[in-house]
Amino acid sequence: MLNADTSFKLIALYRTPSNPTAFDRHYMDVHAPLARKIPGLSRLVVNRGITPPWGGQSPYYLVAEMQFPDEATFTAAMASPENRATGKDLRQFAGDLVTLVVVREEKL
Amino acid sequence: MLNADTSFKLIALYRTPSNPTAFDRHYMDVHAPLARKIPGLSRLVVNRGITPPWGGQSPYYLVAEMQFPDEATFTAAMASPENRATGKDLRQFAGDLVTLVVVREEKL
Repeated sequence: MLNADTSFKLIALYRTPSNPTAFDRHYMDVHAPLARKIPGLSRLVVNRGITPPWGGQSPYYLVAEMQFPDEATFTAAMASPENRATGKDLRQFAGDLVTLVVVREEKL
Repeated sequence: MLNADTSFKLIALYRTPSNPTAFDRHYMDVHAPLARKIPGLSRLVVNRGITPPWGGQSPYYLVAEMQFPDEATFTAAMASPENRATGKDLRQFAGDLVTLVVVREEKL
């Protein structure tokens, strides 16, 4: 069995902001600390888009993965005041940049 | 320090195929086995897009993460014949559905 504590993820895909420095500062100093307060979150993984070996620009600037252990914990997390505060901040600083995907990890 | 064996990832984001059953069969029976042969791959994580709690359709049907331990291993993997075979299969069965993102995990 694979790692059981990553079965539900909310993936946030951010396109390149017009001001990457300001974006990074807000993300690291304000947004990530809000996200870390969401009850039940098992891990927050932040990934930077980099130039692919086949060239061209990365389609996403930042890819953040919020991991939850199971569906019940994920559902409760989404309904929490902490998640609402995180979502409100997201809409304000990156509402036009972000695509959100909710996924369940397949047990292969 | 966080898990050191997930520092480079090739993320494949697949939009919803016209024939999900045929897509799943090809992905699981042909594509994933090809991807697993890529030298240096530390883990393949396959995630299903699900309906988000706020409603609407998932923007992506499947999100696959190919994890590599470091940049040198990732670069060698991308140049391998096994990766070329995997890429050729990808273009044939899902070239019009996939967005590829290369990311480096941030050590927070």
